Amino acid sequence: MLALARNARAAARRMAAATREQKDAALEFAARELLRLRDPILQANGEDVAQAREHGLSAPLIERLKLDDTVLLRLAAGLRQVAALPDPVGSEIERRTRPNGLVLRRVRVPIGTILLIFESRPNVTVEAGSLCLKSGNACILRGGSEAAASNRSLVQVLRSGLEQAGLPADAIGTPATSARAALEELLKLDTHIDLVIPRGGEGLIRVVAQQSRIPVIKHYKGVCHVYLHADADADAELAKRIVLNSKLQRVGVCNAAETLLVHRAVVDTLLPTVAKDLLAQGCELRCEAKARAALAAAGLTQVTSADERTFYSEYLDKILSVKVVESLEEAVEHIETFGSRHTDTIVTSNAEAGRRFQQLVDSASVFVNASTRLADGFEYGMGAEIGISTDKLHARGPMGLEELTTYKWLGDGSGQVRV
Amino acid sequence: MLALARNARAAARRMAAATREQKDAALEFAARELLRLRDPILQANGEDVAQAREHGLSAPLIERLKLDDTVLLRLAAGLRQVAALPDPVGSEIERRTRPNGLVLRRVRVPIGTILLIFESRPNVTVEAGSLCLKSGNACILRGGSEAAASNRSLVQVLRSGLEQAGLPADAIGTPATSARAALEELLKLDTHIDLVIPRGGEGLIRVVAQQSRIPVIKHYKGVCHVYLHADADADAELAKRIVLNSKLQRVGVCNAAETLLVHRAVVDTLLPTVAKDLLAQGCELRCEAKARAALAAAGLTQVTSADERTFYSEYLDKILSVKVVESLEEAVEHIETFGSRHTDTIVTSNAEAGRRFQQLVDSASVFVNASTRLADGFEYGMGAEIGISTDKLHARGPMGLEELTTYKWLGDGSGQVRV
Repeated sequence: MLALARNARAAARRMAAATREQKDAALEFAARELLRLRDPILQANGEDVAQAREHGLSAPLIERLKLDDTVLLRLAAGLRQVAALPDPVGSEIERRTRPNGLVLRRVRVPIGTILLIFESRPNVTVEAGSLCLKSGNACILRGGSEAAASNRSLVQVLRSGLEQAGLPADAIGTPATSARAALEELLKLDTHIDLVIPRGGEGLIRVVAQQSRIPVIKHYKGVCHVYLHADADADAELAKRIVLNSKLQRVGVCNAAETLLVHRAVVDTLLPTVAKDLLAQGCELRCEAKARAALAAAGLTQVTSADERTFYSEYLDKILSVKVVESLEEAVEHIETFGSRHTDTIVTSNAEAGRRFQQLVDSASVFVNASTRLADGFEYGMGAEIGISTDKLHARGPMGLEELTTYKWLGDGSGQVRV
Repeated sequence: MLALARNARAAARRMAAATREQKDAALEFAARELLRLRDPILQANGEDVAQAREHGLSAPLIERLKLDDTVLLRLAAGLRQVAALPDPVGSEIERRTRPNGLVLRRVRVPIGTILLIFESRPNVTVEAGSLCLKSGNACILRGGSEAAASNRSLVQVLRSGLEQAGLPADAIGTPATSARAALEELLKLDTHIDLVIPRGGEGLIRVVAQQSRIPVIKHYKGVCHVYLHADADADAELAKRIVLNSKLQRVGVCNAAETLLVHRAVVDTLLPTVAKDLLAQGCELRCEAKARAALAAAGLTQVTSADERTFYSEYLDKILSVKVVESLEEAVEHIETFGSRHTDTIVTSNAEAGRRFQQLVDSASVFVNASTRLADGFEYGMGAEIGISTDKLHARGPMGLEELTTYKWLGDGSGQVRV
């Protein structure tokens, strides 16, 4: 592990000085290699899938593991899209000329070596690897054991792309083993690795955060809220559209809504309308008492009851927690207590209420009259996303290429000294 | 400790919504309290000093511990200076309008609750506390046991300022005990505390970094380099001025130079000139063999020999390590191996060499023809400094008010959903 990290560190130094042309060429070469090596890649993937079946992995997990021609074509297109994105490295964040004539520039530079830990989906190897490469970082990709053969073949594609472009292959590394002990060893190498990004289930991320001596950027889960304010019935169609899209457009993702908060003033009018559509689309509603009573009064009885765990739940499924609140402040309080600081949205026609919600809710993304599903690197115009951070330092919300950089201060002087 | 952190967390929510006027008023009230409570503060400090003498603390440590009227006046002036600085909270970092009409704004917000750990100097209580307050954070100030009474009285001043301005006193907290066990407990409270900033000796900082479950921003030490390039003799006066200022303007600070690297081409011309002045000012020179030989040839024999620890050393004293290198690349390599990623400077009349040095050296601040002593929050125009980071994430180099903030994404929509 130490040799792997050392090689990555040495490669990181060369990557930091690589030109945009070299990095883009490496991505283009990798795209070609990916298609040229179609057969061995799919064969390696076939081995993983066969073994996963033997080990009795669930059907959805096996589905996520599978590569085919469509996926490979999409991955190759993705590599070219990353090549087309602007290079964040070297861009000037700010410039100040001091009274003594010293010109200070704050410029973007790569972070260095990034350890990416992920599960199951071998696509992540190509997607995350390409973003680290483009941002001038070296990375160590540590995938799950169930995708070991697939990941190895995809890492080889990226390394070959780097070599063909005259860049160090070691800028993309992978441990020879996916054993837990090897990961634990990597997490201690804080003089060689600059950042750890774990992606996967909450359990994995908690283990990584607990054991790492290296800074970790992560999100444990996404318990996103839609709050219908007292005046949300002014445009019932808009309210309905946002609730339904936030919950149901895609359910297995971290920016899907898990909880609906409804101001008491619109419980009898707006809530039944929204609930009817949710139920019609097969969404279960887990309601606390007041919400349940309001729905029952409107003739909607096919709902379930909330218990003490309900509002902490990230369902990733067609289930929505529902609660009535007395005020915007109570909604904020609820989000503070039960939320995950990911993304929350208010539906209101009152600009002042929107502003207040945005100020008080301490989440990475806070929306007014927009679906929580829009909290995403592509939707934010980043062109790509390596993950979402609910941490507070360095990066919050979707992380694109810029978030994979840090900065340094360059000072150009003509003999300035401290007086 | 849990109650302390919980109260700070609750206060942080109110501080995040505080107006600039309230925060500045709190600082002004605190400045007045500081002068009004002169007698009890100096009395508390007197107890600390008496106890320090009893425990046999060294004279310089006792000197750092002492408060007097001059220090109190300076601290009060500092509080007013922080009040006069712009408020970073709420400022818009960027704004983008997406094709679907969603307006995204990235705005600065406070980080939340910051745990500041420091030793000895009670001034830090006021300086760091005022910066956390102005940036809308709550903070827990954990000073050393030797300054316990002084720190308590100064924390009281800040709390009283907050209360008089209608802000929560708990935005400035301090543990009732400076016992190590209490600190260890605080470092585990990652759901209540957002950031730890340790300031002090390398030993303390290493313990904090190792035990903390909360993100830490820090610098262990400052081994800063001045590199005299092959053409540095083109302006020998400039070279001399930068070396002497970097090393000797003040020696006990992290941005003072500890190592002089000299390109072989100027070893016989420039090095003796520079060395003569350094020696004349009482600076010891610890030279590797080639530098020593060159100086001996110039008749300068009163130097010492470098050993294997020399180039890792942060002397904080009138001592300078000296080494001859064959090239700019070797200088960079040396800095990579022995440096602390704090601040390094090149002296050259060649703009291309300067640019290359700035690109290759991976430090928070990289200068051309300027003294390392300029790496400082005030010199950078930040108005104040809470510390210097040699970490790579979130903040690098001097940290002012902006570096005590993070951001959130605010999205203003009109019914936008994910399609």
